[in-house]
Amino acid sequence: MQFEQITVVGVGLIGGSVGLAVRARNLAARVVGVDRDIRTLNRAVELGVLDSFTLDLAEGVKHAELVVVCTPVDRIAEAILAAAPHVRPGTIFTDAGSTKYNVVQGVGHRLPAGVHFVPGHPLAGSEKTGVQHARADLFENRVTVLTGTIEGIDPGAERTVEVFWQALGSRVVKMASPRDHDSALAATSHLPHAVAAGVAQIVPADWLTLSGTGFRDVTRVAAGDPNLWAAIFQANREAVQAALGSFTKRMDEFKRLLEAGDGAGLVRWLSEGKQVRDALGS
Amino acid sequence: MQFEQITVVGVGLIGGSVGLAVRARNLAARVVGVDRDIRTLNRAVELGVLDSFTLDLAEGVKHAELVVVCTPVDRIAEAILAAAPHVRPGTIFTDAGSTKYNVVQGVGHRLPAGVHFVPGHPLAGSEKTGVQHARADLFENRVTVLTGTIEGIDPGAERTVEVFWQALGSRVVKMASPRDHDSALAATSHLPHAVAAGVAQIVPADWLTLSGTGFRDVTRVAAGDPNLWAAIFQANREAVQAALGSFTKRMDEFKRLLEAGDGAGLVRWLSEGKQVRDALGS
Repeated sequence: MQFEQITVVGVGLIGGSVGLAVRARNLAARVVGVDRDIRTLNRAVELGVLDSFTLDLAEGVKHAELVVVCTPVDRIAEAILAAAPHVRPGTIFTDAGSTKYNVVQGVGHRLPAGVHFVPGHPLAGSEKTGVQHARADLFENRVTVLTGTIEGIDPGAERTVEVFWQALGSRVVKMASPRDHDSALAATSHLPHAVAAGVAQIVPADWLTLSGTGFRDVTRVAAGDPNLWAAIFQANREAVQAALGSFTKRMDEFKRLLEAGDGAGLVRWLSEGKQVRDALGS
Repeated sequence: MQFEQITVVGVGLIGGSVGLAVRARNLAARVVGVDRDIRTLNRAVELGVLDSFTLDLAEGVKHAELVVVCTPVDRIAEAILAAAPHVRPGTIFTDAGSTKYNVVQGVGHRLPAGVHFVPGHPLAGSEKTGVQHARADLFENRVTVLTGTIEGIDPGAERTVEVFWQALGSRVVKMASPRDHDSALAATSHLPHAVAAGVAQIVPADWLTLSGTGFRDVTRVAAGDPNLWAAIFQANREAVQAALGSFTKRMDEFKRLLEAGDGAGLVRWLSEGKQVRDALGS
């Protein structure tokens, strides 16, 4: 697989890592970056992420065969719709958003004939943000989810995007329903992020000395970018509310067992969590 | 500093690591282990954790200058009281329990004259348990807290215990009040553990594929031993209830902001967590 041109829209941690990974693997003759911040783009070229760049979305996508949209989740659909009139027939869009239903709804039926969209979500990332933290191996041994759209997916386009993420080292998992993706991610990623932030908030500065590796692990993701995460919570509100409801029920049960001094009940309650975590490995 | 004999009571991850660390640094001519499980003790000798062992607590402590009690928190006070009549005058007890008030209350005024107790808590550990995971460097660059007791601390004994944990690589922090220790640890360790278990519980097995490093980090501690943690929660019930109350208030606020679609409010809420986490470093 080699593309003439891949264009990355939004050159942060994820977009930057796509650029580095594509260039490291020689998957494209040219990687072009589009961003709203000229300093980010200059930095990206210095870091070897991009061959060239432009601030003009239409200009950046006009020769692309594949456009990978890596903006925050509340701007993905609008970037695709703004770029679509300027691409050549056959061009494929994919994205890296942590939510899929809002993106799929936003794009709707509005793509020109012959222009394809295959929604994607590489489960890779970090509490760090910005192109300076981009890594060519960010997607290696990670899962990338591809979902359906409202219009249905073009099989050839889907196959191209699947092979693309596999070439970056990902294992591709297909989920027809963007809503199912969002429900699962609300539980495995979005709610855990909120909980980490909530735990961090209750510790006053003078108690931080009295924290160990457990606290560091539980709260690590809370260092993530509040703007990116606020957008994710808003884009996936209903599923996050459902996950929060389930979590609250579990914590209410913990509270009840604690108040009752029910040692055997606490052991059972903790064992249910341990069983899930042990299934994951370290 | 060199002791003739240090006795470790309870040879699991923490007790085993004390043994390894003492022997690696040549801090004692002899490290003697006491445990209820003969297989654990045999394994500990194979691993180089102990010079010798006994199942008989009285026998194990009678020649010790320092006794380090590393049992689960609900058995520390009883082990100290059971051992105390058999030690020589001047013997010092310390412990490694994650809760301090219940231990200090349990020991009370019941030590024989000339026998000292300096409560301790090395903030070291892991979701792994058992002597097979013991490490000579477990306490390096970790904080060990020493607290007061009901009777007041003998300054010479406190100094000896302080130098002991420092010799194992710890930074020693003194907190006069065991209750203050327990309040802080409820927020920095005990509640985060419960929250990690609660988060793990809401993810069904078929969604685990859709989890990334964030979920692994947030839930890592949930793999810990349910029996050890149930004992900690029961020993520190009031402080954990207070921390749970603070956390629940923060999550209620998150829920309200999410329902209201208050993006700026969500950014502020997440920023409060980020500020605390950033103060810690990675």
